[in-house]
Amino acid sequence: MIIDCLALAKELNAFNVRAVKELKQRGIAPKLCEILATSDAGVLSYAETKKRQAAELGVLYESFIFDYDASLDTVLEKIRQLNQDKSAHGIVIGLPVFAHLDSDILLNEIAQYKDIDGLGSKNTSALFTNQEQSAIAPATPAAALYILESLSAVSGKKVCILGRGRTVGRPLLEMLINRNATVTVCHSKTAVIDIEMAIAQSDIVMTAIGIAGTVKSEWFKAGQIVIDCGISFINGKTSGDVNSAELSDLGAFVTPVPKGAGAVTNAMIFANLIKAVDLQ
Amino acid sequence: MIIDCLALAKELNAFNVRAVKELKQRGIAPKLCEILATSDAGVLSYAETKKRQAAELGVLYESFIFDYDASLDTVLEKIRQLNQDKSAHGIVIGLPVFAHLDSDILLNEIAQYKDIDGLGSKNTSALFTNQEQSAIAPATPAAALYILESLSAVSGKKVCILGRGRTVGRPLLEMLINRNATVTVCHSKTAVIDIEMAIAQSDIVMTAIGIAGTVKSEWFKAGQIVIDCGISFINGKTSGDVNSAELSDLGAFVTPVPKGAGAVTNAMIFANLIKAVDLQ
Repeated sequence: MIIDCLALAKELNAFNVRAVKELKQRGIAPKLCEILATSDAGVLSYAETKKRQAAELGVLYESFIFDYDASLDTVLEKIRQLNQDKSAHGIVIGLPVFAHLDSDILLNEIAQYKDIDGLGSKNTSALFTNQEQSAIAPATPAAALYILESLSAVSGKKVCILGRGRTVGRPLLEMLINRNATVTVCHSKTAVIDIEMAIAQSDIVMTAIGIAGTVKSEWFKAGQIVIDCGISFINGKTSGDVNSAELSDLGAFVTPVPKGAGAVTNAMIFANLIKAVDLQ
Repeated sequence: MIIDCLALAKELNAFNVRAVKELKQRGIAPKLCEILATSDAGVLSYAETKKRQAAELGVLYESFIFDYDASLDTVLEKIRQLNQDKSAHGIVIGLPVFAHLDSDILLNEIAQYKDIDGLGSKNTSALFTNQEQSAIAPATPAAALYILESLSAVSGKKVCILGRGRTVGRPLLEMLINRNATVTVCHSKTAVIDIEMAIAQSDIVMTAIGIAGTVKSEWFKAGQIVIDCGISFINGKTSGDVNSAELSDLGAFVTPVPKGAGAVTNAMIFANLIKAVDLQ
């Protein structure tokens, strides 16, 4: 079965719309600020999506665009200004930034409760110490868990994560452990036979590789839940890590790409913004 | 085979002695400061061990003792003073502290490069982003890896961690992923049959539970490497998580408790102090 992620995104956005209305009744006009110091077409297109979605939800959106010759200090100074600006409730950075800018330094400069992508060290270390309630969790792992928890309890389940990146695999790992899952992490240095075995023995598989075709459909079985957070582009077509049609035919419950975890992530960014307003 | 951890601790301390001599030749007298805001007998006894070991290595050691009525602010103020004090190269906190003090707030107040236990958010998030070289890693996981790497390569190996605590299990997990291991994390909410299966399929098992008797010897097999970071006290006797004699008889390579990972950890604390001086 293909999991209807658009319905879940709609549900989450309905919550967002209600919450934004309530904030406005309290005199707060939630605003998301985005730092764009990049020429990456994917990042710029994604920023447009956020801008459009913000408008749909009644959220203010402003982007701050930096040229290639902008120094680290210039970008840091803008982040510091936004940290101080009470009308700016959230700050995100379009990643990857230009190669001469250090994304870790930029991310760690964002005030913890304005760090809507949850990638700064204060928020990631809150995952590490199981203090998610008082932190902002990265949107993609949070969206992946939102999808998963709409289908199944997580505590005590065996989960296999494919990928160990800092935006999805790593935080997802911590968040799953916090939810009492037993987790196996596989990655590019894991032998194929070991990946196959880890998948075979898992109730739930969550992928965050970003390369289509490396995960074989025959490794899966009926009844498994598969949340695909990978996105890659092949011949102009958007693809996930797994072949969702084949997995669905096998009897697995699987998210599609596109219109899958990404759609829920887009909604989760604004849910994070609303949480951020409450934490501020 | 029982792994000779005392020999490894001796090797590491020989390095420490040489490094301390070199620092002194450069006019630096390395000093470890310990915050003791606790009445826990184990913590106080461990502090005495550090003091004695410091003396053996030629390292200065000073403890700062707080009564039960000391406020969080009082302890924080002392940490801030030590952060500023150039003669204080390392700060550790005897954990657990009195219940009314928040250990996370205390740990996060320590300057990153004076945080010898590596438990503050800046150091833990450096593990998370695979930037260990420029951070201080927690001593027990670092010691466990020191033992492991003396016996085997880690990249591509299947490792099972038992335990998800913030001082051992969690950071160890991140450090193993950074070393390209494929890792499964089991904990108190993992079904016994799943723990048994995870151990059976692993090349390496690392335990950090702290309760003797929950891990059965029959789950292990010949050739596995077992690093036991658990310590518990039964009838006045110090015990690990596994029965090292039985595992050794089975043909596994196993660290004993006592005189195991703890001995290497004691040496690693001072290796961390020396690294900290370099980073400062």
